[in-house]
Amino acid sequence: MTITVFGRSASAFNLILFYVLKELGLSYELVQTTPEEIKSPDYLATKHPFGKTPSLNDDGFQIYETRAVARYLINKYQGTKSSTVLIPSDVQKAALVDQFISVETSYYTQPLVKMLTQLILVKKQGNEPDLKIVNEAREELDKNLDVYEKLLEGKDYLTGEFSLVDFLHIPSTYYAFKAGEGELWNKRPNVSRWWKNISEREGWKSIVTEYKLDEVV
Amino acid sequence: MTITVFGRSASAFNLILFYVLKELGLSYELVQTTPEEIKSPDYLATKHPFGKTPSLNDDGFQIYETRAVARYLINKYQGTKSSTVLIPSDVQKAALVDQFISVETSYYTQPLVKMLTQLILVKKQGNEPDLKIVNEAREELDKNLDVYEKLLEGKDYLTGEFSLVDFLHIPSTYYAFKAGEGELWNKRPNVSRWWKNISEREGWKSIVTEYKLDEVV
Ligand SMILES: N[C@@H](CCC(=O)N[C@@H](CS)C(=O)NCC(=O)O)C(=O)O
Ligand SMILES: N[C@@H](CCC(=O)N[C@@H](CS)C(=O)NCC(=O)O)C(=O)O
Repeated sequence: MTITVFGRSASAFNLILFYVLKELGLSYELVQTTPEEIKSPDYLATKHPFGKTPSLNDDGFQIYETRAVARYLINKYQGTKSSTVLIPSDVQKAALVDQFISVETSYYTQPLVKMLTQLILVKKQGNEPDLKIVNEAREELDKNLDVYEKLLEGKDYLTGEFSLVDFLHIPSTYYAFKAGEGELWNKRPNVSRWWKNISEREGWKSIVTEYKLDEVV
Repeated sequence: MTITVFGRSASAFNLILFYVLKELGLSYELVQTTPEEIKSPDYLATKHPFGKTPSLNDDGFQIYETRAVARYLINKYQGTKSSTVLIPSDVQKAALVDQFISVETSYYTQPLVKMLTQLILVKKQGNEPDLKIVNEAREELDKNLDVYEKLLEGKDYLTGEFSLVDFLHIPSTYYAFKAGEGELWNKRPNVSRWWKNISEREGWKSIVTEYKLDEVV
């Protein structure tokens, strides 16, 4: 079994996959890509037709889009090398994981990535962040975190039990704290308790060390 | 078994669920909601915390977010009342369905819904559509449909076989044609062949008739 990830070790979607691989107990090789490379005809034809990372190859089977790759790895390998359960087999419990993945995609990661693109990427390229975009995205996220605060009442994790969906929030939120936006999480008791639960897991801390995330940004 | 859908019979995300229910051979009751109702404390607390439709109740189990509800129905009922396969059991084939669901969510439905919100919803409310938003969204969709054109080369359906992911494209595309944007699909041979394959299925045609979609818009 040879698993190869094509991507960049500092980018949020890629970090999600590294963490899934780690929790499943799988080893992998990382092939670092450059911004130019992922728009090349070869990358578009064989790795990701929309020119994004990550893309993964498992013994010849190529698959892209983070959440789909994560599901694939879980369906294929969960329970074989580690005992961590990321998607439960019970149909209703699995449905709740799916429900919260859609919540994460629509109401959390979308405005958060919009905000971080301005606050981190645009700044890194030496340009001024567009504050109108930042403010609109922050406002939307703030409103949606109010809903998270209710959803997390009395719960340690989104579905009640630790699962894939909690993970999907970690790297982008880690970067939001780095960008000085931590107050959005800290000011809400349930949300900040949840953030502590998920960000202080050993698996994630070892990813932070391994990929030297402290030094990024 | 009693399945209740809370939603509006004309709206794209709701139509996806009606179609999934039909292909799985399941009967259901539709409780029509109003725009005010879905923002009420009761609806937010018991149906959908972000105030959206559809939301579904299956014998007391409440679940929301279209793609998650569809997966739940498929996991629970596929093969019990009809022989249609919407998610195959083979791990790699299922992974391709997941991959294309993420493609649909990120690169197709997102710009399309942005465009349709202006061209249909805003117009219906008696306001002028924001042409800057329309043009930007159309441009993004146009670029992404070029990728679809390549992905659909020599294939009848996105993964090769008819599956849940083809469905997820139908209602919003149906409305795009109604809004006069059909050329985006028609001008691409593979994309238009695919659109013919999926939109001319009996199941979808009976949904159009049952919910009188010809008269909507
Ligand atoms: N929908 C994709 C999004 C992936 C994504 O946005 N990746 C970023 C890096 S974190 C990327 O490739 N950006 C480069 C670009 O858009 O040119 C997924 O879920 O995998
Ligand atoms: N992410 C949701 C989106 C659902 C959605 O946008 N529903 C529309 C109707 S098609 C809605 O409820 N709009 C009312 C509103 O946003 O106030 C899903 O996948 O179910």
